[in-house]
Amino acid sequence: MLAVTLGDPAGIAPELACAAWAAKDSENLPPFAVAGGAAILKDAGIRRGLDMPVHAVTCLAEAADVFPEALPVLSGPDGTYRPGEPNSDGARIALASLEAGTALAISGEASGVVTGPIDKARLAEVGFAFPGQTEFLAERCGIAAGDAVMMLAGPSLRAVPITVHVALLQVPTLLTADLICNRTRIVAEALKRDFGIPNPRIAIAALNPHAGEQGLMGDEEERVIAPAIAALHAAGIDASGPHAADSLFAPRARETYDAAIAMYHDQALIPLKALDFDEGVNITLGLPVVRTSPDHGTAFGIAGKGMADPGAMIAAIRMAGEIAARRAAA
Amino acid sequence: MLAVTLGDPAGIAPELACAAWAAKDSENLPPFAVAGGAAILKDAGIRRGLDMPVHAVTCLAEAADVFPEALPVLSGPDGTYRPGEPNSDGARIALASLEAGTALAISGEASGVVTGPIDKARLAEVGFAFPGQTEFLAERCGIAAGDAVMMLAGPSLRAVPITVHVALLQVPTLLTADLICNRTRIVAEALKRDFGIPNPRIAIAALNPHAGEQGLMGDEEERVIAPAIAALHAAGIDASGPHAADSLFAPRARETYDAAIAMYHDQALIPLKALDFDEGVNITLGLPVVRTSPDHGTAFGIAGKGMADPGAMIAAIRMAGEIAARRAAA
Repeated sequence: MLAVTLGDPAGIAPELACAAWAAKDSENLPPFAVAGGAAILKDAGIRRGLDMPVHAVTCLAEAADVFPEALPVLSGPDGTYRPGEPNSDGARIALASLEAGTALAISGEASGVVTGPIDKARLAEVGFAFPGQTEFLAERCGIAAGDAVMMLAGPSLRAVPITVHVALLQVPTLLTADLICNRTRIVAEALKRDFGIPNPRIAIAALNPHAGEQGLMGDEEERVIAPAIAALHAAGIDASGPHAADSLFAPRARETYDAAIAMYHDQALIPLKALDFDEGVNITLGLPVVRTSPDHGTAFGIAGKGMADPGAMIAAIRMAGEIAARRAAA
Repeated sequence: MLAVTLGDPAGIAPELACAAWAAKDSENLPPFAVAGGAAILKDAGIRRGLDMPVHAVTCLAEAADVFPEALPVLSGPDGTYRPGEPNSDGARIALASLEAGTALAISGEASGVVTGPIDKARLAEVGFAFPGQTEFLAERCGIAAGDAVMMLAGPSLRAVPITVHVALLQVPTLLTADLICNRTRIVAEALKRDFGIPNPRIAIAALNPHAGEQGLMGDEEERVIAPAIAALHAAGIDASGPHAADSLFAPRARETYDAAIAMYHDQALIPLKALDFDEGVNITLGLPVVRTSPDHGTAFGIAGKGMADPGAMIAAIRMAGEIAARRAAA
């Protein structure tokens, strides 16, 4: 049984949780319960045009019985559904739901947690002291934030950025062979354990156009990335590159690897969103618990209008269930 | 009548010229002649399994008569076809063909030139003193290299990088509001004149992840890109942005603009090649002559093996024909 967090209740997460439950049979989804927000979810379902039951439950064991007939919702924070109107009450509800869902995953009561999108700036206003949910999860799991690695996965591509939320100007300075090595090793382990790929093939992108063209356009390939690849080989990891990034995401190239390692945020997210926009899942690798998230934001502008595509939420729930099943079977 | 240059005769351009001619009826291609290489093309066609006639002609008027029945080839440089074995003889042939095709376009005898891919390092060895074919074309046309703007176009996307062949570390330093403005104005003009879009919508990408998130991750959006957009508005150009680059190439976002302006090479080429790998065309905007090129390299590794996809060469010939027809009708 997975725990799904409510995300910002003024965003699209509540209606997507409802839409995912409504599609559970056609999409063959694993069972899940939402951490809090019964009244919000009830209203979100109605606004979405879904005539669906929402049942309050007190624990996940009870939720398993309820799931076939109704969306199970754990007792917890709740409020009035005001789509598109974020406020600090909503931020407190989002935070309480995140706390509850995370605790269920860490205690083992939930087999994993799927987090709805939050508004980071509003959460910061109510005392959330983390850059994002990933860092929060890492801290609660007792691991260093740097060892929690963000992977974006869709039907066409798995991609991992080495540097994430930093200015582009800082990227060349932040890249080190150790950083690339450490994160790629976490990715290789996760591809084995969580994705069932015994000998994962990992393609490592270059930083500069044309992979630097033998140092004519930047030397990070020779100075930083190639040594990282050599160290990965020495550790028995099938890593290739540095590959010119523009060709790396073309259809035939994508068939040659199980995951691509990008040097910066947009290098990973541009191809993922171009190819798999409505099905992109954000997975945190390297955690003791299973955590996925739909790869989109709160989308306040379209919340409550019945327009939001549930594909990424459905994919995030499915992927969390698959990873949890693989870990349980191991 | 278009002039097609031979490109490096050890690469895939000769066989693609043959394949394009063989597909001229099904693809409804405009007439073209290759500048030189009759023996090379004859052999390339045979190696490709195409039982097709190659006819030597002395001028493009004669080529028009020949085109329905045979691939017309202007007298000029020629040699022995050795696919996958580039050498300086081949580089000289490639350069002579480029010179001839360019001269035909500048004189007006050809309505445009479609350039086959060359090996820049080998061409440099035989005295070619330009970073690439685009700069050569600009010089021959008597315009500044900076005013010749590279656009990549496929069925899904038109994208223009503001900075091109430079190390990523240099990109933030090289970006100025003037540079963005000047290149975007050339793009807007070309969308009107060459693509027949009366009021082109131009989306301008951010440099930093999440468009800098109000300056938290870089200030180039506020300091450089936003002022450029304001200046473009003042000049009557429908420019929007700066847009977070990761979402800009997603399917629904692509419907909202006619061209995307990227800040660096891979920001434009990653989505183009991910989406339109076998149909990408490189178009030089801002030239007095029409020039397109298939957006791929010499591919020495697969030359002569019948594997190279002719889609991009066919698209480059079709697009050159369409642009030439629009200019002729204007």
